[in-house]
Amino acid sequence: MTLPLNHPDRLFPADTAVRSIARSLFETVESLPIVSPHGHTDPQWFADNENFSDPSTLLVVPDHYVVRMLVSQGVGIEELGIRPSDRGTEAFDPEAVWRCFANHYHLFRGTPTRQWLDHTFETLFDLHDPLGPDTADGYYRRISDCLQREEFRPRALYEQFGIEVLATTESAVDDLRHHAALADSGWRGKVVTTYRPDTVADPEHADFHRDLTLLGEITGCNVETWQGYLEAHRARRAFFRSHGATATDHGFASARTADLSQADCVALFDRVLAGKINAEDSELFRAQVLTEMARMSIEDGMVMQIHPGSLRNHHHAMHRQYGRDKGFDIPRRTDYVAALRPLLNAVGMEPSLKLILFTLDETAYGRELAPLAGVYPCLKLGPPWWFFDSPDGMKRFRELTTETAGFYNTVGFNDDTRAFPSIPARHDMARRIDCAFLAERVADHRLREDEAFEIARDLAYTLPRRAYRFD
Amino acid sequence: MTLPLNHPDRLFPADTAVRSIARSLFETVESLPIVSPHGHTDPQWFADNENFSDPSTLLVVPDHYVVRMLVSQGVGIEELGIRPSDRGTEAFDPEAVWRCFANHYHLFRGTPTRQWLDHTFETLFDLHDPLGPDTADGYYRRISDCLQREEFRPRALYEQFGIEVLATTESAVDDLRHHAALADSGWRGKVVTTYRPDTVADPEHADFHRDLTLLGEITGCNVETWQGYLEAHRARRAFFRSHGATATDHGFASARTADLSQADCVALFDRVLAGKINAEDSELFRAQVLTEMARMSIEDGMVMQIHPGSLRNHHHAMHRQYGRDKGFDIPRRTDYVAALRPLLNAVGMEPSLKLILFTLDETAYGRELAPLAGVYPCLKLGPPWWFFDSPDGMKRFRELTTETAGFYNTVGFNDDTRAFPSIPARHDMARRIDCAFLAERVADHRLREDEAFEIARDLAYTLPRRAYRFD
Amino acid sequence: MTLPLNHPDRLFPADTAVRSIARSLFETVESLPIVSPHGHTDPQWFADNENFSDPSTLLVVPDHYVVRMLVSQGVGIEELGIRPSDRGTEAFDPEAVWRCFANHYHLFRGTPTRQWLDHTFETLFDLHDPLGPDTADGYYRRISDCLQREEFRPRALYEQFGIEVLATTESAVDDLRHHAALADSGWRGKVVTTYRPDTVADPEHADFHRDLTLLGEITGCNVETWQGYLEAHRARRAFFRSHGATATDHGFASARTADLSQADCVALFDRVLAGKINAEDSELFRAQVLTEMARMSIEDGMVMQIHPGSLRNHHHAMHRQYGRDKGFDIPRRTDYVAALRPLLNAVGMEPSLKLILFTLDETAYGRELAPLAGVYPCLKLGPPWWFFDSPDGMKRFRELTTETAGFYNTVGFNDDTRAFPSIPARHDMARRIDCAFLAERVADHRLREDEAFEIARDLAYTLPRRAYRFD
Repeated sequence: MTLPLNHPDRLFPADTAVRSIARSLFETVESLPIVSPHGHTDPQWFADNENFSDPSTLLVVPDHYVVRMLVSQGVGIEELGIRPSDRGTEAFDPEAVWRCFANHYHLFRGTPTRQWLDHTFETLFDLHDPLGPDTADGYYRRISDCLQREEFRPRALYEQFGIEVLATTESAVDDLRHHAALADSGWRGKVVTTYRPDTVADPEHADFHRDLTLLGEITGCNVETWQGYLEAHRARRAFFRSHGATATDHGFASARTADLSQADCVALFDRVLAGKINAEDSELFRAQVLTEMARMSIEDGMVMQIHPGSLRNHHHAMHRQYGRDKGFDIPRRTDYVAALRPLLNAVGMEPSLKLILFTLDETAYGRELAPLAGVYPCLKLGPPWWFFDSPDGMKRFRELTTETAGFYNTVGFNDDTRAFPSIPARHDMARRIDCAFLAERVADHRLREDEAFEIARDLAYTLPRRAYRFD
Repeated sequence: MTLPLNHPDRLFPADTAVRSIARSLFETVESLPIVSPHGHTDPQWFADNENFSDPSTLLVVPDHYVVRMLVSQGVGIEELGIRPSDRGTEAFDPEAVWRCFANHYHLFRGTPTRQWLDHTFETLFDLHDPLGPDTADGYYRRISDCLQREEFRPRALYEQFGIEVLATTESAVDDLRHHAALADSGWRGKVVTTYRPDTVADPEHADFHRDLTLLGEITGCNVETWQGYLEAHRARRAFFRSHGATATDHGFASARTADLSQADCVALFDRVLAGKINAEDSELFRAQVLTEMARMSIEDGMVMQIHPGSLRNHHHAMHRQYGRDKGFDIPRRTDYVAALRPLLNAVGMEPSLKLILFTLDETAYGRELAPLAGVYPCLKLGPPWWFFDSPDGMKRFRELTTETAGFYNTVGFNDDTRAFPSIPARHDMARRIDCAFLAERVADHRLREDEAFEIARDLAYTLPRRAYRFD
Repeated sequence: MTLPLNHPDRLFPADTAVRSIARSLFETVESLPIVSPHGHTDPQWFADNENFSDPSTLLVVPDHYVVRMLVSQGVGIEELGIRPSDRGTEAFDPEAVWRCFANHYHLFRGTPTRQWLDHTFETLFDLHDPLGPDTADGYYRRISDCLQREEFRPRALYEQFGIEVLATTESAVDDLRHHAALADSGWRGKVVTTYRPDTVADPEHADFHRDLTLLGEITGCNVETWQGYLEAHRARRAFFRSHGATATDHGFASARTADLSQADCVALFDRVLAGKINAEDSELFRAQVLTEMARMSIEDGMVMQIHPGSLRNHHHAMHRQYGRDKGFDIPRRTDYVAALRPLLNAVGMEPSLKLILFTLDETAYGRELAPLAGVYPCLKLGPPWWFFDSPDGMKRFRELTTETAGFYNTVGFNDDTRAFPSIPARHDMARRIDCAFLAERVADHRLREDEAFEIARDLAYTLPRRAYRFD
């Protein structure tokens, strides 16, 4: 089948000899199963297995990459079907949203969003003309028709996509009912959870006190003491593991860690409970929790992930009115060397600890992250994240980390997506870029071809399975 | 005509297939009119339309790119015709300056200055042998001869260069007499001014108190009150608009903004007037002025530009002795995310505000500027500035911003030059690099060819006209 | 001879036309003598000229690039023959170390270490099959056999490598006995020292007080006064110059400099001697010493080098147990613009000062270092250092510095190595990358071919000789 929207050689180097190497490499990894160890799909989709409602609700409204670009060019956020929190159930016209999106589709030229969407349109919905004002209605009808069908339900798509394992991410106080239902359902798909305790670890989070109380109720631990608080984490980690979790995830504004004395921890926790803290105390508390999480990971074997550096909800009024995840999270400079030192000095040489680092500050790749991961046995580098999960972003990641940390201190790809239909597109892109990178190094004789084939498979399949302990 | 100094395929990718795409794209934009919405040429040139005096005074002495490179290699600054401020009128021998420059011309290998100059030498002065010690005198004679001729006067060059509009930059207290003269002259060229109120907005500027007093005199506003001070800005902005200005420009050491209460503004302004301020107060005053300027832009429609991040006059004694703009301005790390937050929270979602951001810190492109411009409707990204207005600099700009902000949150090219004869060379370079960038993305199938032709034209012509409201 | 491990076109651009230009350029510089003006080989090797003991002691145990990668993948540091400081003489089995290394050799794929080693294996030891578990023992035997032979002794290797001059680095209190022995030996090789006074300039260094006392004893200066301390430096610099030194080197955590009054220097020095200092005082003392070193360089003509930005010994326990240089030094963000301002304001325009800057923060290349070196006559840019002494690292260095500072504000290559056998490999790599960089600029017509040939020779040979005053 010819795919006019998705050339078979897309993202490969232009030089014909190098392109030919890239193509050979890609052929060996293109159809490997998808391991998706970190992401934000909704487990309820797979538990309930209901049809998705309409093209806009599936592909436009919840995708902050799409929303932010349209808002940046003057489209009102409500035109995109997003409603203020206080009238969140108000209906919108999905066809109007789709037309608005289609009319602005040229804005995505040169972005990965455009490539993910074109891949989805063509390979999933069999659409071959470019999306635009003239094709908007035809697109809408075709996708709507598909979404009504059995083979476009979540479980069918999971199978069609060749997914081997898919991790979702849940809050520490989530009851994991959808994962439980899935386990009971007998369906063969493997959808596991991930322990993300940010709301009970960040005293500045709006839900901190509510969720902390809830944490105590759920676990029966006395979360008014530091020891009880730690016990509650241990209990929840065990509960998450019983629903398949192999990993935890932590997303604070910085990567700061701390290794306070027991007495200082107790005193800090008391101040936190009493609400008598300043910004430094909050930062210190999050920092100490990270080190405690690392200690628990040594005990229970859960892989730890840190996603620092996003300044969330940059525009206060938009946040107040429309809530989180509307495109207003902005990266900042992020230090790792001093920030991680307390944790690494405490437990960084423990053979059983695995800690995967992510960044939104590309300057840290070569200067801090590759040198750290290139010596500490616990550290591995997560793939390019968020804004940098893109062809050029992935290329820079490899260029800036490989010479110091090699390939084997990285963990393959994470799609990190909320947009379920884009999963194949994202893994396709990552595999192409890695093959292009390897092909260039074969072409200039930095790697032998037999090595490149081995590395291509490792990056696409072996390393993510090993890093997240699915093997 | 063959141009040995300027190969027709210069700056295009080496791969023949990609080069061929780049060439096709470039052919469609090469001859588009030049829109020059930001720069530092002298309006008096066009008002008086007198011949330029000699090659060194035109091309060497005022060009800080040239001066700094020669100084860095041990050439005394006075050998280049630059005089201490206290004997500024002392004559120099332009032929000796030219020979010194020619003898060191190899230092510019690999720099954009070399490419701009070779383009000027060959296309404007019909010189085809490389400049060097052996050709120095011949070059001097040819250029001198040309400069005497009618067709090398400023207005004739403007027309020959195919300029559609050219913006200069003037201080808030400038009387704009040259722009007025130009308007009266009946000449068809469009030379507009830009409102640059730094000297009345930065309490640490040497001329602050003098220019503030002058501002009061010129406008009749009571600039001893905060409200009167703001009124004076409004009056001057209107005056600048009446001389064609569509934009303002602001160049402070940081991008910091503030949104103080009215009472705090008044108190701060009183401290500023009394000279009872520290560095933080000065920073805060500049920060508040930026937000006020944004508010006025919403009122009057002027496009706002921010050029932050240069530490001016790094060497005190050179500054004291020879004055500003002698090559001793050095970029520093620049934060945008926290810095712009007060302004963006105050007015960042206003549909009519347009704010163009520049940087001398390339690490901000991908981490801060593209994410900000990719969501705030008021923000657009200015082209690579100063040291980064270069082939590799422009390539990095596109590579680091496009995947997050797309093409349509950028504003095309600014030549930003004091060196009038280099304008065609600079636009030629920018158009070539953009076409090369697009050609690579057509070659690896990230863009369709029809899209690339449309984008090439948008970047060269449509976007600068739209961004600066010349359309 | 075919070299299966080292393709003759390695590191050249893939495009056949560009590759052909690179090859032509490289042919003219490949066999130029090696100038090695900065490194960490042991002068005793050349003074005693004894055979190296075994492959592991030569190539694995002392190479922190090798050790850190293996440690990062869970190999215990003692498996690599490294012993705790308190049982430092404990023997290890070099064959077991070698097998461990060989079993993990795939980890180095994509790193410069792999390329340096393959170059050494093949060109020095005539080994042509890839190192791995199956070839480990054969490798060990072949290298062991070679190392017993006359022509593999240090002086013979020096001559075989085509070294013209080699600089080592010694502490201020070193007696330079090996350099003296070398001078007396009549051997024609030129091995010079470099003055590295960090232990007597950094009050936070563990050996500071011990070495300061020693400095007084050796020089007879009263190092209990600031003037006597400076005199002692002058005396040692003269002594080092008498053993061939043309340069000094300074490696602190930051690039900060100071220019205190005489009285403040005296008071600070008194606090330092009394041990009554905080972190800021220590930083200030190092900062002031840098400026004093610059002043002495103006007096005595020694070229000054600054290598800032490494946070040494990131993991306390590993440092305590195994000592320095075990792979736990991590780069940090490094400021140059404010940091160097005091020194540059004091002496930056002195024509006789030469100050070579290095960095572990690549973001400084374009933003700070190239702009500074592109105007200050004393400043030159050292080559990419440490983690960035790699193909992609060298490419980024040229891409980020050339457009602002040109080629002639750089100083060619430093191998900076402790691993003597890798010297030819490292210079080979640097010459290839520079030729590749030049070839690309010839191919896109930014440079003429005749210029590229001249620059290639300058970078490989002329500039390092000139910068370090060996010519």
